[in-house]
Amino acid sequence: MISSTVLFYGNYVLCLCLGLLCVVFVSYWNTEWRGGFAWDASFLQFNWHPVLMVTGLVVLYGNAAILYRIPFTWSQRKQRWKLVHAALLLSSLFLSILGLCAVFDFHTGYHIPNLYSLHSWVGICTVVLFTAQWVLGLVGFLSPCSPLGFRKLLKPVHAWMGMAIFILSLASCLSGINEKLLLALNSTAAYSSHPAEALFANFLGVLIVAFGLVVLGILSNQRWKRLEPGQESSRVIVTRDMMTDMQCFYSIIV
Amino acid sequence: MISSTVLFYGNYVLCLCLGLLCVVFVSYWNTEWRGGFAWDASFLQFNWHPVLMVTGLVVLYGNAAILYRIPFTWSQRKQRWKLVHAALLLSSLFLSILGLCAVFDFHTGYHIPNLYSLHSWVGICTVVLFTAQWVLGLVGFLSPCSPLGFRKLLKPVHAWMGMAIFILSLASCLSGINEKLLLALNSTAAYSSHPAEALFANFLGVLIVAFGLVVLGILSNQRWKRLEPGQESSRVIVTRDMMTDMQCFYSIIV
Repeated sequence: MISSTVLFYGNYVLCLCLGLLCVVFVSYWNTEWRGGFAWDASFLQFNWHPVLMVTGLVVLYGNAAILYRIPFTWSQRKQRWKLVHAALLLSSLFLSILGLCAVFDFHTGYHIPNLYSLHSWVGICTVVLFTAQWVLGLVGFLSPCSPLGFRKLLKPVHAWMGMAIFILSLASCLSGINEKLLLALNSTAAYSSHPAEALFANFLGVLIVAFGLVVLGILSNQRWKRLEPGQESSRVIVTRDMMTDMQCFYSIIV
Repeated sequence: MISSTVLFYGNYVLCLCLGLLCVVFVSYWNTEWRGGFAWDASFLQFNWHPVLMVTGLVVLYGNAAILYRIPFTWSQRKQRWKLVHAALLLSSLFLSILGLCAVFDFHTGYHIPNLYSLHSWVGICTVVLFTAQWVLGLVGFLSPCSPLGFRKLLKPVHAWMGMAIFILSLASCLSGINEKLLLALNSTAAYSSHPAEALFANFLGVLIVAFGLVVLGILSNQRWKRLEPGQESSRVIVTRDMMTDMQCFYSIIV
């Protein structure tokens, strides 16, 4: 049997590779087929939008979410890794807001209304929730004056909100790639005629899905959860059957 | 403090209401603005596609996924609820495949290529994975000759795949609504001018997101997991601190 730690690191390396591929693919798509980048309220400024959203809201965010699962960090002080977690998420938030600025500036320049599509509604909700989650996380988990009872209450909400934001990020990116290809290609080579750009960008979507599923797989595995203070390395569920069998009990806790 | 059971039923009622609203909204959208339904390879046949996908792949699937979490079912034999779970998922799968037939027939009638958009790629992957998951679930958990070791190995994979399929269903539906509005509205009232249909269908997307997040919230809460045979109603994590404190130990297991 492969050990849990080896299995984790296999998944972690896969996650890092898929994340890197997502960034390379989204950058190559916008360089090769969309004309590259600028910050002048033109179409070239829009091209920063998918790159910054995929890099910030999906890849950096996903890596920040699984940080506490790395077994290497378990023996070290949690406070240090809390700071790394918060810093990674702050970078992710900064890139996401910059990505929103890119599209809002472009819309203003071309007199296109903002926030009309479902993609934009889901996307803006994701960034707003992410901002609220980051501030609440800072106040609840990094502020020294946050009471222990509040932290305990906040923790499951923080974990669920974190997963919700990541899922919304994935949905935003997939619907965004779909929207961009429908709007950009139908005036030249129709999306439905399977041009090379469409296949490449669809494949970027598949990579984002694969990355997301590996991250959610890591998060949902209870064996890879960092143990909280007072817990030992072997977690045991106590059942009445075990309790009545006291000679068995001592072998369990060793 | 609200008890865990009351909190569950609050979430469950919310989930049922949101699911019902999703079905009402997707049906009303396609009746009021898209001309209603037929099965004649026309645009009216296409209209079955969003209705069947939202009803089958999201609402029925989500309800089937949280079935084991209902505290009312915990005291009853699991085999009975396994059959209900499998039947609900089979209905969900049937509606989803019917929903695919609706769009493939329509495409054939209008000579539109199949499976070109990212929405269609994610959607078809979702239904293929769902079919594989259902067959594997039937063989692994309902077949009497399935060995216990295989069931234990399959269970976490089944749970993770189930969650992955649900997330892909949500992403498929959101990107599909976005795609439909972009394709259907830009020839008449542009999507970007915020026509009533666009706002209504976007709100359907918001309802789908809300339903999905409530389902995932229920699934991620460890306190609402059905206990397996041999486990008791109070789960206790054994820590070394507890073990050295034996007088405390007896109070824990009661």
